[in-house]
Amino acid sequence: MNPVWIIQKKRDRGELTAAEIGEFIAGYVRGDVPDYQMSALAMAIYLNGMTTDETAALTDSMLNSGARFEWPDDGRLRADKHSTGGIGDKTSLLLAPMLACCGLQVPMISGRGLGATGGTLDKLEAIPGFRTDLSMEEVRDVVRRVGCVITGATADLVPADRKLYALRDVTATVPSIPLITASIMSKKLAEGLDALVLDVKFGSGAFMKTLDQARRLAESLVSTGKRMGVATTALLTDMNQPLGRMAGNAVEVNESVAALEGRGPADLMEVTLALGAQVLAFAGRRPGRSQDGGREGTGGPPRCVASRGAGCGSSISAFRLPRGHKHRKAGPGDHRHAGRTAAARRPAGPLHRH
Amino acid sequence: MNPVWIIQKKRDRGELTAAEIGEFIAGYVRGDVPDYQMSALAMAIYLNGMTTDETAALTDSMLNSGARFEWPDDGRLRADKHSTGGIGDKTSLLLAPMLACCGLQVPMISGRGLGATGGTLDKLEAIPGFRTDLSMEEVRDVVRRVGCVITGATADLVPADRKLYALRDVTATVPSIPLITASIMSKKLAEGLDALVLDVKFGSGAFMKTLDQARRLAESLVSTGKRMGVATTALLTDMNQPLGRMAGNAVEVNESVAALEGRGPADLMEVTLALGAQVLAFAGRRPGRSQDGGREGTGGPPRCVASRGAGCGSSISAFRLPRGHKHRKAGPGDHRHAGRTAAARRPAGPLHRH
Repeated sequence: MNPVWIIQKKRDRGELTAAEIGEFIAGYVRGDVPDYQMSALAMAIYLNGMTTDETAALTDSMLNSGARFEWPDDGRLRADKHSTGGIGDKTSLLLAPMLACCGLQVPMISGRGLGATGGTLDKLEAIPGFRTDLSMEEVRDVVRRVGCVITGATADLVPADRKLYALRDVTATVPSIPLITASIMSKKLAEGLDALVLDVKFGSGAFMKTLDQARRLAESLVSTGKRMGVATTALLTDMNQPLGRMAGNAVEVNESVAALEGRGPADLMEVTLALGAQVLAFAGRRPGRSQDGGREGTGGPPRCVASRGAGCGSSISAFRLPRGHKHRKAGPGDHRHAGRTAAARRPAGPLHRH
Repeated sequence: MNPVWIIQKKRDRGELTAAEIGEFIAGYVRGDVPDYQMSALAMAIYLNGMTTDETAALTDSMLNSGARFEWPDDGRLRADKHSTGGIGDKTSLLLAPMLACCGLQVPMISGRGLGATGGTLDKLEAIPGFRTDLSMEEVRDVVRRVGCVITGATADLVPADRKLYALRDVTATVPSIPLITASIMSKKLAEGLDALVLDVKFGSGAFMKTLDQARRLAESLVSTGKRMGVATTALLTDMNQPLGRMAGNAVEVNESVAALEGRGPADLMEVTLALGAQVLAFAGRRPGRSQDGGREGTGGPPRCVASRGAGCGSSISAFRLPRGHKHRKAGPGDHRHAGRTAAARRPAGPLHRH
């Protein structure tokens, strides 16, 4: 394989084969393909795009660059949610324990902040003593005991993405739908999921400014997830205003705990429950598997199940707060937002369903 | 200056300012802008193009990355010819001594082979003892004494081009008209020329396969040369068959010597004389300057002057062949071509005239 020929083919709008993409990415991770060739290819991908086949092959080759979780065939559904992020978006802090409470297992590998917004890991680290650097073995153990985990990617998981993401950041190749798709989906697929729901946000506080951009990203993510054998769906949600009343790492943790205790703001709960319902809908329709580990059955409409999950009591314990812990006071980076009508936040509805 | 913003602007089809281009290139030469950012910008330039202003600014910033020749204001015309290269193209070996013989000074900085064809330096090195690594001081001295020199770029001349050319070669960003223009013109302008004629070849044996591609490159080169204050013209010439009867470094030197002795193949002489005529036309129209150092005056049509230049006798001495030198035998890389009709080689005519 000559990396120059591959760059040239994409430069000339050709469609790369899975073998070409696989060898290029493997070479990049090994260090045989230098950064300057990867960045030239990334810019060619940015400007000329990729087909669905190419995007799936890129995702697959990045996934294959590292380890991935494998779970016992015990009939339990492993699911996760991923959000493209926005101001005040704390749905992961709610959904992981809520889905665990409903009997699912949620091995959530999460990220840091992008631009102005804190990432889920940044928020959780506002809790003194909270570790976000669990090993794969620790992740397996916590998932088995607690039902959910939220932690950062280990060095073993998707090294191609870590390397490529850092390069894209300094070469103006971040906002490319195929590159975003491969980055998100390779990390999520490394979790060994059965089901995945994507929260693709649009609006002034989101990465994708327009509904149309968000829809194109969502279609790419869903189609790639399905090709890789994971039941995948996406909601397009409004991020023209912050989600909930709090924005800032520590205060968002406080608001999330309150929400799990049944005192969540309407807009936050609307989005959280809609996302949870999508995951539970997969669980309910899953042939030959029962959610026997959960406190809630799968009877009734999925939305109600998720709603009851929010108050099931175990959600808070899933956070495993140290005894006597007091939430950190709001700091200079924390902002409080006035309440808004929930109507403006209503999700645009499921885009695809597996 | 943030290099990422500049890459992003070109990625989004914006027009870069001269200051942005200048800072990016200066940073690249200093090593502050790494290869991976330069290659991302090069791919964005390849795919989105550059305006005439941007191309001129790129040329200027590359030219400013190193030293350049300055010549005394002695009324002599410094001129050069550059060819985009093709099989059997040995016109530089003829033109440099012919123009010197006509009283011009030709400080020709030449290059190595590209692809299948040997470069002028490769050909000259078939002459045992021929040095192609003269210092700037040696170049000045040889030009003053002999009237012409053909040598390689010194380390002082256009370091930005040396660095960028190596990078383009491994990132599939070579055949870009703005990048080719800046590469060629920065090197030629560093020679401190008054006049430049460009031989832009088209056809199966040329870099530009079609007449249309060649015309676009020629227009870019001529317009950039003019903006930089050099009288520049271009001929579009046919490279669907090799030029002359010889292709191969040593045998092309033999054929060139024979041509300077008046025994050149018709097609080679046709192109060589047409290019020489363009340069001499500048000389003839130059106000307030006479070509007093030449054996031939500027009377009569320029073409005839050049034609007589070919036989003026000093051309051979300008080669300064060592006494008793025997031309190297043709080796495995050397090919002999059957003669063809000269008609097929006729230049397409001057594209622009200053």
